[in-house]
Amino acid sequence: MSSFLFVTPTWDGGQWAAEMRKAAPALDVRVWPDMGDPATVDYVAAWLPPPNVVRSLTGLKVIFSLGAGVDAILKDPTLPDGVPIVRVNDPDLTMRMTEYVVLHVLMHHRQQRRLDENQKKGIWDGFPTHAASGLRVGIMGLGVLGQDAAQKLAMLGFKVAGWSRTPKHLDGVQCYSGAGGLDTFLARTDILVSLLPATPETDGILNRALIRKLARSGPFGAPVLINAGRGRQQDEDDILAALDAGELHGATLDVFRTEPLPKESRFWTHPRVTLTPHIAADSDPAVICNYVAQQIAVYERTGQLSNLVDRSRGY
Amino acid sequence: MSSFLFVTPTWDGGQWAAEMRKAAPALDVRVWPDMGDPATVDYVAAWLPPPNVVRSLTGLKVIFSLGAGVDAILKDPTLPDGVPIVRVNDPDLTMRMTEYVVLHVLMHHRQQRRLDENQKKGIWDGFPTHAASGLRVGIMGLGVLGQDAAQKLAMLGFKVAGWSRTPKHLDGVQCYSGAGGLDTFLARTDILVSLLPATPETDGILNRALIRKLARSGPFGAPVLINAGRGRQQDEDDILAALDAGELHGATLDVFRTEPLPKESRFWTHPRVTLTPHIAADSDPAVICNYVAQQIAVYERTGQLSNLVDRSRGY
Repeated sequence: MSSFLFVTPTWDGGQWAAEMRKAAPALDVRVWPDMGDPATVDYVAAWLPPPNVVRSLTGLKVIFSLGAGVDAILKDPTLPDGVPIVRVNDPDLTMRMTEYVVLHVLMHHRQQRRLDENQKKGIWDGFPTHAASGLRVGIMGLGVLGQDAAQKLAMLGFKVAGWSRTPKHLDGVQCYSGAGGLDTFLARTDILVSLLPATPETDGILNRALIRKLARSGPFGAPVLINAGRGRQQDEDDILAALDAGELHGATLDVFRTEPLPKESRFWTHPRVTLTPHIAADSDPAVICNYVAQQIAVYERTGQLSNLVDRSRGY
Repeated sequence: MSSFLFVTPTWDGGQWAAEMRKAAPALDVRVWPDMGDPATVDYVAAWLPPPNVVRSLTGLKVIFSLGAGVDAILKDPTLPDGVPIVRVNDPDLTMRMTEYVVLHVLMHHRQQRRLDENQKKGIWDGFPTHAASGLRVGIMGLGVLGQDAAQKLAMLGFKVAGWSRTPKHLDGVQCYSGAGGLDTFLARTDILVSLLPATPETDGILNRALIRKLARSGPFGAPVLINAGRGRQQDEDDILAALDAGELHGATLDVFRTEPLPKESRFWTHPRVTLTPHIAADSDPAVICNYVAQQIAVYERTGQLSNLVDRSRGY
């Protein structure tokens, strides 16, 4: 019997183990810190593992990274070399991220906050609005999540472009890539959506210099930022300063450098900020466990794994 | 030279005429009440025309109904018989309605109001949410608008059904029809979206008896109502009573029996109501005028018209 260990200090490991036992009844499922003999663990699924826990699993065959971003695994400096890491990238998670992106792009596009204010004040004002084709959305990061969001937004009529490190081709989406393509991409973007992975290159990338390169010719006169990637990517003082200076029309932020967001952060009360508590793409334990169980079944039969992480690239 | 008349007492006719002159430079474009000799008007485009104005146009060839619903034309009791009525149903208007429906379904699905409240109170609460596939959306009215909204919602992962007077078939959408199909449709619906045309049969259809037939087994324990059809369809006292009694979890209303909505309406301040000032599918004058100009060009060449209204049916 193969054994499987959850290392999720900030989550309810018991709930995950129950789902995993349903998905793979033949596995011996354990929950850290009750992991038995570390040398007998074949598979680990982890989110923010404490140092030396994964390293102690000397017979480990595969690491499953829970959540869409693998930074929560890769930040463990003691992670053993040579063990393959699988990114859990199930369709459920992709669809949830797309819901979030579509919802918040539409909220800005249809000026829902202005309508909310009018309702509060008892004002009936059917101000004219532009068509979706008059709004240019730009997605940074064209992995599975970015591609799906880009294509759904294009279907709703938005003018969509994407930017990624390496060149991509997507039907109905204008694709830019690399350092050379970034400024052109930003200059045509009214609403910037960041779905970038957390890597050293993307650290602090959402700063004032970048914001100033976005289009000012859109329907709101200033651009909008939506970040559903990682908090490390945002320079939070710069974003607040850009909002205050009118260089940003609004921002929707799901992630922050420190989470939970500290009480004293001005994001909580800024009138042009919508903040959500890192819920853009929730992991549904049942769906994730089925995905992991299926990967293990294929691996035990064929030795093959999908969705492998390239450690040197960071995603 | 053919002549074209706008009869839009509550709109800025001058703006519409300017767009129409751009779209069809060969037309003699007039704006009521400055209509010259009524007998020389070939085409009229109207929204809520006063009685006897359209009737006075004795040489009239075609009536264009501005806006998606034709009730604003058909409520003119003096409308001349025998003149074809064309419904202005351009893709721009359809896309705007779909934006509205997708936005407000997603706001309920992702509990954006709860997140807004939490932001206001400084509460970081990543409460778990269900997948779109766990939410059953039901669209009443499967004309051009209902079909497009249904298909876009299905693509986002929602379980979508539709109900219409006559049977329809739509990929990915379970279709119900007629009086016989209504109760089954309502019983499987967590979020009801009304896009019905305004006819005598749909008058007051959104009442407490109907609300009580909706599903109570959905993720919120009580159903949600979104009305972007016509205000006449809603029994507004019933909707408020159902909200107060917990028989409705929430409501998003774009239309009302009296518009603008009177100051004293409880909808303005009800904590579970989102109201918008009849802006779900705004008519963009430039787009509409291009559509009308194109129809006239085809009509003058071939005698053919598309999107004709069946007066006996009322849409």
